[in-house]
Amino acid sequence: MEQWLQDDERLDYLLAEDLRIIQSPSVFSFSLDAVLLARFINVPKSKGHIVDLCSGNGVIPLFLSARTKAQITGVELQPRLYDMACRSIRYNSLEQQITMTLGDVKEAADQLGVEKYDAVTCNPPYFLAHEMSDKNMSEHYAIARHEIHLTLEEAIFAASRLLKQGGKAAFVHRPGRLLDIVTAMRAHRLEPKRIRFVYPKRGKEANTLLIEGIKDGKPDLKILPPLYVYDEDNNYTSEVSELLYGEHS
Amino acid sequence: MEQWLQDDERLDYLLAEDLRIIQSPSVFSFSLDAVLLARFINVPKSKGHIVDLCSGNGVIPLFLSARTKAQITGVELQPRLYDMACRSIRYNSLEQQITMTLGDVKEAADQLGVEKYDAVTCNPPYFLAHEMSDKNMSEHYAIARHEIHLTLEEAIFAASRLLKQGGKAAFVHRPGRLLDIVTAMRAHRLEPKRIRFVYPKRGKEANTLLIEGIKDGKPDLKILPPLYVYDEDNNYTSEVSELLYGEHS
Repeated sequence: MEQWLQDDERLDYLLAEDLRIIQSPSVFSFSLDAVLLARFINVPKSKGHIVDLCSGNGVIPLFLSARTKAQITGVELQPRLYDMACRSIRYNSLEQQITMTLGDVKEAADQLGVEKYDAVTCNPPYFLAHEMSDKNMSEHYAIARHEIHLTLEEAIFAASRLLKQGGKAAFVHRPGRLLDIVTAMRAHRLEPKRIRFVYPKRGKEANTLLIEGIKDGKPDLKILPPLYVYDEDNNYTSEVSELLYGEHS
Repeated sequence: MEQWLQDDERLDYLLAEDLRIIQSPSVFSFSLDAVLLARFINVPKSKGHIVDLCSGNGVIPLFLSARTKAQITGVELQPRLYDMACRSIRYNSLEQQITMTLGDVKEAADQLGVEKYDAVTCNPPYFLAHEMSDKNMSEHYAIARHEIHLTLEEAIFAASRLLKQGGKAAFVHRPGRLLDIVTAMRAHRLEPKRIRFVYPKRGKEANTLLIEGIKDGKPDLKILPPLYVYDEDNNYTSEVSELLYGEHS
Protein backbone atom coordinates (compact mmCIF):
# COMPACT_ATOMS: atom_id res chain seq x y z
CA MET A 1 0.00 0.00 0.00
CA GLU A 2 2.86 2.36 0.84
CA GLN A 3 3.71 3.25 -2.71
CA TRP A 4 0.18 4.63 -3.21
CA LEU A 5 -0.13 6.84 -0.15
CA GLN A 6 1.70 9.91 1.21
CA ASP A 7 1.71 11.54 4.65
CA ASP A 8 -1.67 11.17 6.36
CA GLU A 9 -3.48 9.89 3.29
CA ARG A 10 -5.72 6.86 3.47
CA LEU A 11 -7.36 4.64 0.90
CA ASP A 12 -11.15 4.84 1.33
CA TYR A 13 -13.80 2.74 -0.31
CA LEU A 14 -16.35 4.14 -2.74
CA LEU A 15 -18.58 1.36 -1.61
CA ALA A 16 -21.36 1.61 -4.14
CA GLU A 17 -18.88 1.20 -6.95
CA ASP A 18 -16.24 -1.18 -5.58
CA LEU A 19 -13.69 1.55 -6.17
CA ARG A 20 -11.12 3.03 -3.82
CA ILE A 21 -10.11 6.65 -3.44
CA ILE A 22 -7.12 8.32 -1.80
CA GLN A 23 -8.16 10.87 0.80
CA SER A 24 -6.41 12.99 3.40
CA PRO A 25 -8.11 14.62 6.36
CA SER A 26 -5.73 17.59 6.27
CA VAL A 27 -6.05 18.24 2.53
CA PHE A 28 -9.40 17.18 1.13
CA SER A 29 -12.12 14.61 1.64
CA PHE A 30 -14.96 14.27 -0.78
CA SER A 31 -18.41 15.23 0.39
CA LEU A 32 -21.84 13.70 -0.02
CA ASP A 33 -22.60 16.59 -2.39
CA ALA A 34 -20.05 15.30 -4.89
CA VAL A 35 -21.63 11.85 -4.80
CA LEU A 36 -25.10 13.32 -5.30
CA LEU A 37 -23.90 15.36 -8.27
CA ALA A 38 -22.23 12.34 -9.90
CA ARG A 39 -25.57 10.50 -9.60
CA PHE A 40 -27.75 13.43 -10.62
CA ILE A 41 -26.40 14.39 -14.03
CA ASN A 42 -27.73 12.72 -17.16
CA VAL A 43 -24.64 11.29 -18.85
CA PRO A 44 -24.17 9.60 -22.19
CA LYS A 45 -24.08 5.87 -21.48
CA SER A 46 -21.71 4.43 -24.02
CA LYS A 47 -19.70 7.13 -25.75
CA GLY A 48 -18.95 10.85 -25.65
CA HIS A 49 -16.72 12.88 -23.39
CA ILE A 50 -17.44 14.37 -19.97
CA VAL A 51 -15.43 17.04 -18.14
CA ASP A 52 -15.47 17.42 -14.36
CA LEU A 53 -14.37 20.87 -13.17
CA CYS A 54 -12.99 21.48 -9.66
CA SER A 55 -12.30 17.77 -9.54
CA GLY A 56 -10.51 17.66 -6.16
CA ASN A 57 -9.30 14.14 -5.47
CA GLY A 58 -11.25 12.86 -8.46
CA VAL A 59 -14.34 11.56 -6.69
CA ILE A 60 -16.79 12.61 -9.39
CA PRO A 61 -14.81 11.10 -12.31
CA LEU A 62 -14.45 7.89 -10.30
CA PHE A 63 -18.18 7.68 -9.56
CA LEU A 64 -19.06 8.61 -13.14
CA SER A 65 -16.83 5.82 -14.49
CA ALA A 66 -19.29 3.33 -13.04
CA ARG A 67 -22.24 4.95 -14.85
CA THR A 68 -20.81 5.40 -18.35
CA LYS A 69 -18.28 4.21 -20.85
CA ALA A 70 -17.69 7.81 -21.96
CA GLN A 71 -14.27 9.40 -21.63
CA ILE A 72 -13.90 11.57 -18.53
CA THR A 73 -11.48 14.44 -17.97
CA GLY A 74 -11.04 15.97 -14.53
CA VAL A 75 -9.67 19.50 -14.09
CA GLU A 76 -8.02 20.43 -10.79
CA LEU A 77 -6.00 23.51 -9.88
CA GLN A 78 -4.16 22.20 -6.83
CA PRO A 79 -1.14 19.96 -7.58
CA ARG A 80 -1.53 17.96 -4.40
CA LEU A 81 -5.19 17.09 -5.12
CA TYR A 82 -4.42 16.50 -8.80
CA ASP A 83 -1.73 14.05 -7.73
CA MET A 84 -4.06 12.22 -5.36
CA ALA A 85 -6.65 11.92 -8.13
CA CYS A 86 -4.06 10.55 -10.58
CA ARG A 87 -2.95 7.91 -8.10
CA SER A 88 -6.56 6.89 -7.35
CA ILE A 89 -7.24 6.51 -11.06
CA ARG A 90 -4.17 4.30 -11.48
CA TYR A 91 -5.03 2.30 -8.37
CA ASN A 92 -8.44 1.51 -9.87
CA SER A 93 -6.89 0.83 -13.31
CA LEU A 94 -9.07 3.49 -14.93
CA GLU A 95 -6.32 5.30 -16.87
CA GLN A 96 -8.00 4.34 -20.15
CA GLN A 97 -11.20 6.15 -19.22
CA ILE A 98 -10.23 8.98 -16.88
CA THR A 99 -7.60 11.67 -17.51
CA MET A 100 -6.71 14.38 -15.01
CA THR A 101 -5.58 17.85 -16.09
CA LEU A 102 -3.72 20.18 -13.76
CA GLY A 103 -4.90 23.70 -14.42
CA ASP A 104 -7.20 26.61 -13.94
CA VAL A 105 -10.90 26.02 -14.63
CA LYS A 106 -11.09 29.47 -16.23
CA GLU A 107 -8.68 28.21 -18.93
CA ALA A 108 -10.18 24.74 -19.26
CA ALA A 109 -11.85 25.37 -22.63
CA ASP A 110 -8.64 26.88 -24.03
CA GLN A 111 -6.71 23.81 -22.88
CA LEU A 112 -9.26 21.10 -23.67
CA GLY A 113 -11.22 22.56 -26.58
CA VAL A 114 -14.26 24.79 -27.07
CA GLU A 115 -17.74 23.27 -27.66
CA LYS A 116 -16.35 19.73 -27.79
CA TYR A 117 -17.94 18.04 -24.77
CA ASP A 118 -21.22 16.26 -24.06
CA ALA A 119 -21.49 16.90 -20.34
CA VAL A 120 -19.76 18.94 -17.64
CA THR A 121 -20.03 18.47 -13.88
CA CYS A 122 -18.83 20.99 -11.31
CA ASN A 123 -18.89 20.98 -7.51
CA PRO A 124 -17.44 24.49 -7.11
CA PRO A 125 -16.23 26.34 -4.02
CA TYR A 126 -19.42 27.25 -2.11
CA PHE A 127 -18.38 30.22 -0.03
CA LEU A 128 -17.55 33.77 -0.99
CA ALA A 129 -13.90 34.68 -0.40
CA HIS A 130 -14.81 37.10 2.39
CA GLU A 131 -16.81 34.42 4.22
CA MET A 132 -13.65 32.62 5.39
CA SER A 133 -14.38 32.10 9.04
CA ASP A 134 -11.45 29.93 10.06
CA LYS A 135 -8.18 31.71 9.32
CA ASN A 136 -6.28 28.58 10.30
CA MET A 137 -7.98 26.50 7.64
CA SER A 138 -5.40 24.73 5.45
CA GLU A 139 -4.82 26.47 2.16
CA HIS A 140 -5.95 23.32 0.34
CA TYR A 141 -9.33 23.43 2.04
CA ALA A 142 -9.63 27.19 1.69
CA ILE A 143 -9.15 27.02 -2.08
CA ALA A 144 -11.55 24.09 -2.42
CA ARG A 145 -14.26 25.70 -0.33
CA HIS A 146 -14.04 29.44 -1.05
CA GLU A 147 -14.23 31.50 -4.21
CA ILE A 148 -10.56 32.45 -4.01
CA HIS A 149 -9.39 31.35 -7.45
CA LEU A 150 -12.81 30.77 -9.07
CA THR A 151 -16.16 32.49 -8.75
CA LEU A 152 -19.47 30.78 -9.39
CA GLU A 153 -20.03 32.71 -12.60
CA GLU A 154 -16.53 31.85 -13.86
CA ALA A 155 -17.26 28.16 -13.24
CA ILE A 156 -20.56 28.38 -15.13
CA PHE A 157 -18.96 30.24 -18.04
CA ALA A 158 -16.16 27.66 -18.20
CA ALA A 159 -18.71 24.83 -18.33
CA SER A 160 -20.67 26.52 -21.10
CA ARG A 161 -17.58 27.10 -23.24
CA LEU A 162 -16.66 23.41 -23.05
CA LEU A 163 -20.12 22.14 -24.02
CA LYS A 164 -21.49 21.34 -27.43
CA GLN A 165 -24.95 22.67 -28.22
CA GLY A 166 -27.36 20.35 -26.44
CA GLY A 167 -24.67 19.31 -23.96
CA LYS A 168 -25.54 19.12 -20.27
CA ALA A 169 -23.99 20.95 -17.34
CA ALA A 170 -24.74 20.03 -13.74
CA PHE A 171 -23.75 21.88 -10.59
CA VAL A 172 -24.19 21.37 -6.87
CA HIS A 173 -24.37 24.39 -4.57
CA ARG A 174 -26.17 25.99 -1.63
CA PRO A 175 -29.84 26.99 -2.13
CA GLY A 176 -28.99 30.54 -1.04
CA ARG A 177 -27.13 30.93 -4.34
CA LEU A 178 -30.01 29.65 -6.48
CA LEU A 179 -30.72 33.03 -8.05
CA ASP A 180 -27.06 33.69 -8.81
CA ILE A 181 -26.75 30.25 -10.40
CA VAL A 182 -29.82 30.44 -12.63
CA THR A 183 -29.03 34.01 -13.65
CA ALA A 184 -25.47 33.10 -14.59
CA MET A 185 -26.56 29.92 -16.34
CA ARG A 186 -29.04 31.79 -18.53
CA ALA A 187 -26.48 34.52 -19.21
CA HIS A 188 -24.09 31.84 -20.46
CA ARG A 189 -26.56 29.87 -22.61
CA LEU A 190 -27.15 27.05 -20.09
CA GLU A 191 -30.93 26.80 -19.75
CA PRO A 192 -31.88 25.29 -16.37
CA LYS A 193 -33.97 22.14 -16.92
CA ARG A 194 -33.92 20.08 -13.71
CA ILE A 195 -33.51 21.13 -10.09
CA ARG A 196 -33.48 18.82 -7.09
CA PHE A 197 -33.35 20.20 -3.58
CA VAL A 198 -31.64 18.17 -0.88
CA TYR A 199 -33.02 18.40 2.67
CA PRO A 200 -31.09 17.20 5.72
CA LYS A 201 -34.32 15.67 7.00
CA ARG A 202 -38.09 16.08 6.87
CA GLY A 203 -39.37 19.43 8.09
CA LYS A 204 -36.02 21.23 7.58
CA GLU A 205 -35.06 23.79 4.95
CA ALA A 206 -33.05 22.55 1.97
CA ASN A 207 -29.29 22.84 2.40
CA THR A 208 -28.12 21.68 -1.03
CA LEU A 209 -29.23 22.25 -4.59
CA LEU A 210 -28.58 20.09 -7.65
CA ILE A 211 -29.20 21.76 -11.00
CA GLU A 212 -28.78 20.65 -14.60
CA GLY A 213 -29.00 22.83 -17.68
CA ILE A 214 -28.77 22.24 -21.41
CA LYS A 215 -26.68 24.46 -23.63
CA ASP A 216 -29.08 26.48 -25.81
CA GLY A 217 -31.99 24.40 -24.46
CA LYS A 218 -35.59 25.57 -24.45
CA PRO A 219 -37.07 26.89 -21.18
CA ASP A 220 -38.83 24.01 -19.42
CA LEU A 221 -37.77 23.72 -15.80
CA LYS A 222 -38.74 20.73 -13.66
CA ILE A 223 -38.50 20.61 -9.88
CA LEU A 224 -37.77 17.00 -9.02
CA PRO A 225 -38.96 15.26 -5.85
CA PRO A 226 -37.01 16.30 -2.76
CA LEU A 227 -34.10 14.19 -1.54
CA TYR A 228 -33.84 13.66 2.21
CA VAL A 229 -30.43 12.73 3.62
CA TYR A 230 -31.31 11.53 7.13
CA ASP A 231 -34.41 9.84 8.50
CA GLU A 232 -36.09 10.52 11.84
CA ASP A 233 -33.48 8.38 13.64
CA ASN A 234 -30.57 10.29 12.04
CA ASN A 235 -29.63 7.37 9.84
CA TYR A 236 -29.16 7.81 6.11
CA THR A 237 -32.43 7.41 4.23
CA SER A 238 -32.60 4.35 2.01
CA GLU A 239 -32.16 6.51 -1.10
CA VAL A 240 -28.91 8.09 0.14
CA SER A 241 -27.66 4.83 1.57
CA GLU A 242 -28.13 3.24 -1.83
CA LEU A 243 -26.23 6.07 -3.57
CA LEU A 244 -23.33 5.71 -1.15
CA TYR A 245 -23.20 1.99 -0.49
CA GLY A 246 -25.05 0.43 -3.39
CA GLU A 247 -28.18 -1.65 -3.52
CA HIS A 248 -26.56 -4.75 -2.06
CA SER A 249 -25.98 -3.25 1.40
CA MET B 1 -80.41 33.10 0.47
CA GLU B 2 -81.81 34.25 -2.90
CA GLN B 3 -80.86 37.87 -2.48
CA TRP B 4 -77.18 36.87 -2.27
CA LEU B 5 -76.90 34.60 -5.27
CA GLN B 6 -77.30 35.00 -9.03
CA ASP B 7 -77.71 32.43 -11.83
CA ASP B 8 -75.78 29.24 -11.06
CA GLU B 9 -73.90 30.68 -8.09
CA ARG B 10 -73.67 28.78 -4.84
CA LEU B 11 -72.54 29.69 -1.35
CA ASP B 12 -69.57 27.50 -0.39
CA TYR B 13 -67.92 27.13 2.99
CA LEU B 14 -64.37 28.23 3.67
CA LEU B 15 -64.36 25.59 6.34
CA ALA B 16 -61.14 26.40 8.11
CA GLU B 17 -62.36 29.92 8.75
CA ASP B 18 -66.12 29.58 9.30
CA LEU B 19 -66.59 31.90 6.34
CA ARG B 20 -68.76 31.49 3.27
CA ILE B 21 -67.87 32.40 -0.31
CA ILE B 22 -70.00 32.84 -3.42
CA GLN B 23 -68.80 30.67 -6.30
CA SER B 24 -70.04 29.79 -9.74
CA PRO B 25 -68.89 26.79 -11.76
CA SER B 26 -69.33 28.65 -15.04
CA VAL B 27 -67.45 31.78 -13.94
CA PHE B 28 -64.81 31.11 -11.32
CA SER B 29 -64.09 28.79 -8.42
CA PHE B 30 -61.14 29.36 -6.16
CA SER B 31 -58.30 26.87 -6.26
CA LEU B 32 -56.20 25.22 -3.61
CA ASP B 33 -53.35 27.45 -4.82
CA ALA B 34 -55.16 30.55 -3.57
CA VAL B 35 -55.64 28.97 -0.15
CA LEU B 36 -51.97 27.98 0.00
CA LEU B 37 -50.89 31.52 -0.91
CA ALA B 38 -53.16 33.09 1.72
CA ARG B 39 -51.51 30.81 4.31
CA PHE B 40 -47.96 31.20 3.02
CA ILE B 41 -47.39 34.95 3.13
CA ASN B 42 -46.07 36.59 6.27
CA VAL B 43 -48.67 39.23 7.11
CA PRO B 44 -48.72 41.94 9.76
CA LYS B 45 -50.88 40.59 12.59
CA SER B 46 -52.63 43.61 14.01
CA LYS B 47 -52.30 46.63 11.75
CA GLY B 48 -51.09 47.68 8.32
CA HIS B 49 -52.65 47.31 4.90
CA ILE B 50 -52.52 44.38 2.49
CA VAL B 51 -53.43 44.38 -1.21
CA ASP B 52 -54.52 41.25 -3.08
CA LEU B 53 -54.09 41.51 -6.85
CA CYS B 54 -56.11 39.35 -9.28
CA SER B 55 -58.54 38.79 -6.44
CA GLY B 56 -61.16 36.82 -8.36
CA ASN B 57 -64.11 36.07 -6.09
CA GLY B 58 -62.16 37.37 -3.09
CA VAL B 59 -60.96 34.09 -1.67
CA ILE B 60 -57.54 35.40 -0.59
CA PRO B 61 -58.88 38.51 1.20
CA LEU B 62 -61.43 36.31 2.96
CA PHE B 63 -58.81 33.81 4.10
CA LEU B 64 -56.42 36.61 5.10
CA SER B 65 -59.11 38.26 7.24
CA ALA B 66 -58.88 35.29 9.60
CA ARG B 67 -55.11 35.71 9.99
CA THR B 68 -54.80 39.46 10.55
CA LYS B 69 -56.57 42.59 11.74
CA ALA B 70 -54.88 44.57 8.93
CA GLN B 71 -56.93 46.29 6.28
CA ILE B 72 -57.23 44.31 3.04
CA THR B 73 -57.94 45.63 -0.45
CA GLY B 74 -58.71 43.26 -3.31
CA VAL B 75 -58.23 44.32 -6.95
CA GLU B 76 -60.21 42.54 -9.65
CA LEU B 77 -60.62 43.41 -13.32
CA GLN B 78 -63.78 41.47 -14.11
CA PRO B 79 -67.05 43.13 -12.95
CA ARG B 80 -68.82 39.81 -12.42
CA LEU B 81 -66.07 38.45 -10.14
CA TYR B 82 -65.71 41.81 -8.40
CA ASP B 83 -69.44 41.72 -7.69
CA MET B 84 -69.29 38.16 -6.31
CA ALA B 85 -66.42 39.19 -4.04
CA CYS B 86 -68.32 42.26 -2.76
CA ARG B 87 -71.37 40.15 -1.94
CA SER B 88 -69.26 37.52 -0.13
CA ILE B 89 -67.61 40.25 1.93
CA ARG B 90 -71.01 41.66 2.93
CA TYR B 91 -72.38 38.18 3.62
CA ASN B 92 -69.54 37.62 6.08
CA SER B 93 -69.92 41.13 7.53
CA LEU B 94 -66.34 41.97 6.69
CA GLU B 95 -66.94 45.35 5.02
CA GLN B 96 -64.95 47.10 7.77
CA GLN B 97 -61.82 45.09 6.97
CA ILE B 98 -62.00 44.19 3.27
CA THR B 99 -62.56 46.56 0.35
CA MET B 100 -62.79 45.49 -3.27
CA THR B 101 -61.62 47.69 -6.14
CA LEU B 102 -62.75 47.10 -9.71
CA GLY B 103 -59.85 47.84 -11.97
CA ASP B 104 -56.73 46.88 -13.86
CA VAL B 105 -53.84 45.53 -11.80
CA LYS B 106 -51.44 47.50 -13.99
CA GLU B 107 -53.03 50.70 -12.66
CA ALA B 108 -53.45 49.54 -9.07
CA ALA B 109 -50.65 51.70 -7.65
CA ASP B 110 -51.98 54.77 -9.46
CA GLN B 111 -55.42 54.11 -8.00
CA LEU B 112 -54.46 52.94 -4.51
CA GLY B 113 -51.17 54.74 -3.87
CA VAL B 114 -47.48 54.13 -4.49
CA GLU B 115 -45.23 52.59 -1.77
CA LYS B 116 -48.04 52.64 0.79
CA TYR B 117 -48.66 48.95 1.53
CA ASP B 118 -47.17 46.36 3.88
CA ALA B 119 -47.90 43.22 1.91
CA VAL B 120 -49.21 42.21 -1.51
CA THR B 121 -50.51 38.82 -2.58
CA CYS B 122 -51.12 37.76 -6.17
CA ASN B 123 -52.38 34.53 -7.71
CA PRO B 124 -51.94 35.64 -11.32
CA PRO B 125 -53.06 33.99 -14.56
CA TYR B 126 -50.72 31.01 -15.04
CA PHE B 127 -50.80 30.39 -18.73
CA LEU B 128 -49.39 32.34 -21.62
CA ALA B 129 -52.04 33.82 -23.89
CA HIS B 130 -51.10 31.53 -26.79
CA GLU B 131 -51.45 28.44 -24.58
CA MET B 132 -55.27 28.64 -24.62
CA SER B 133 -56.21 25.07 -25.42
CA ASP B 134 -59.96 25.22 -25.01
CA LYS B 135 -61.41 27.80 -27.36
CA ASN B 136 -64.82 27.28 -25.77
CA MET B 137 -63.58 28.27 -22.32
CA SER B 138 -65.74 31.03 -20.84
CA GLU B 139 -64.23 34.47 -21.14
CA HIS B 140 -64.26 34.77 -17.34
CA TYR B 141 -62.09 31.68 -16.98
CA ALA B 142 -59.88 32.61 -19.91
CA ILE B 143 -59.03 36.00 -18.38
CA ALA B 144 -58.45 34.51 -14.95
CA ARG B 145 -56.21 31.73 -16.22
CA HIS B 146 -54.30 33.23 -19.17
CA GLU B 147 -52.04 36.23 -19.56
CA ILE B 148 -54.56 38.07 -21.70
CA HIS B 149 -54.84 41.31 -19.75
CA LEU B 150 -51.87 40.89 -17.41
CA THR B 151 -48.45 39.33 -17.84
CA LEU B 152 -46.44 37.87 -15.00
CA GLU B 153 -43.93 40.71 -15.13
CA GLU B 154 -46.71 43.32 -15.07
CA ALA B 155 -48.17 41.67 -11.96
CA ILE B 156 -44.77 41.70 -10.24
CA PHE B 157 -44.13 45.31 -11.16
CA ALA B 158 -47.60 46.30 -9.88
CA ALA B 159 -46.91 44.56 -6.56
CA SER B 160 -43.56 46.29 -6.18
CA ARG B 161 -45.00 49.74 -6.85
CA LEU B 162 -47.63 49.27 -4.14
CA LEU B 163 -45.15 48.10 -1.48
CA LYS B 164 -43.28 50.15 1.07
CA GLN B 165 -39.58 49.39 1.47
CA GLY B 166 -39.43 46.21 3.54
CA GLY B 167 -42.94 45.22 2.48
CA LYS B 168 -43.61 41.64 1.41
CA ALA B 169 -44.95 40.31 -1.87
CA ALA B 170 -46.04 36.70 -2.32
CA PHE B 171 -46.99 34.92 -5.51
CA VAL B 172 -48.16 31.46 -6.46
CA HIS B 173 -47.34 30.05 -9.88
CA ARG B 174 -46.12 27.04 -11.81
CA PRO B 175 -42.52 25.84 -11.20
CA GLY B 176 -41.81 26.07 -14.92
CA ARG B 177 -41.97 29.87 -14.54
CA LEU B 178 -39.56 29.98 -11.59
CA LEU B 179 -36.79 31.65 -13.56
CA ASP B 180 -39.13 34.24 -15.06
CA ILE B 181 -40.52 35.02 -11.60
CA VAL B 182 -37.22 35.44 -9.80
CA THR B 183 -35.73 37.43 -12.67
CA ALA B 184 -38.71 39.80 -12.76
CA MET B 185 -38.81 40.07 -8.95
CA ARG B 186 -35.15 41.09 -8.79
CA ALA B 187 -35.61 43.48 -11.70
CA HIS B 188 -38.42 45.17 -9.74
CA ARG B 189 -36.69 45.35 -6.34
CA LEU B 190 -38.46 42.35 -4.80
CA GLU B 191 -35.68 40.15 -3.42
CA PRO B 192 -36.83 36.52 -3.21
CA LYS B 193 -36.52 35.26 0.39
CA ARG B 194 -38.68 32.16 0.79
CA ILE B 195 -39.75 29.52 -1.71
CA ARG B 196 -41.94 26.54 -1.01
CA PHE B 197 -42.57 23.91 -3.65
CA VAL B 198 -45.87 22.04 -3.63
CA TYR B 199 -45.88 18.43 -4.82
CA PRO B 200 -49.06 16.55 -5.73
CA LYS B 201 -47.67 13.55 -3.84
CA ARG B 202 -44.41 11.90 -2.83
CA GLY B 203 -42.15 10.93 -5.71
CA LYS B 204 -43.76 13.38 -8.18
CA GLU B 205 -42.37 16.61 -9.60
CA ALA B 206 -43.55 19.87 -8.02
CA ASN B 207 -46.57 21.42 -9.76
CA THR B 208 -46.89 24.64 -7.75
CA LEU B 209 -44.50 27.23 -6.40
CA LEU B 210 -45.03 29.67 -3.53
CA ILE B 211 -42.56 32.55 -3.36
CA GLU B 212 -42.21 35.56 -1.08
CA GLY B 213 -39.90 38.51 -1.59
CA ILE B 214 -39.09 41.65 0.36
CA LYS B 215 -38.90 45.03 -1.33
CA ASP B 216 -35.24 46.11 -1.31
CA GLY B 217 -34.41 43.10 0.91
CA LYS B 218 -30.96 41.55 1.15
CA PRO B 219 -30.26 38.34 -0.79
CA ASP B 220 -30.87 35.37 1.53
CA LEU B 221 -33.10 32.79 -0.09
CA LYS B 222 -34.51 29.87 1.91
CA ILE B 223 -36.08 26.78 0.36
CA LEU B 224 -38.75 25.65 2.81
CA PRO B 225 -39.75 22.03 3.39
CA PRO B 226 -41.85 20.60 0.57
CA LEU B 227 -45.64 20.56 0.84
CA TYR B 228 -47.40 17.41 -0.33
CA VAL B 229 -51.07 17.71 -1.31
CA TYR B 230 -52.16 14.05 -1.45
CA ASP B 231 -50.99 11.03 0.49
CA GLU B 232 -50.46 7.52 -0.86
CA ASP B 233 -54.22 6.83 -0.68
CA ASN B 234 -55.05 10.02 -2.66
CA ASN B 235 -56.51 11.74 0.40
CA TYR B 236 -55.37 15.21 1.37
CA THR B 237 -52.32 15.09 3.62
CA SER B 238 -52.92 16.25 7.18
CA GLU B 239 -51.13 19.54 6.46
CA VAL B 240 -53.37 20.43 3.50
CA SER B 241 -56.48 19.15 5.25
CA GLU B 242 -55.72 21.48 8.14
CA LEU B 243 -55.25 24.45 5.81
CA LEU B 244 -58.57 23.76 4.11
CA TYR B 245 -60.75 22.49 6.91
CA GLY B 246 -59.04 23.69 10.07
CA GLU B 247 -57.57 21.76 12.96
CA HIS B 248 -60.90 20.68 14.38
CA SER B 249 -61.82 18.34 11.53
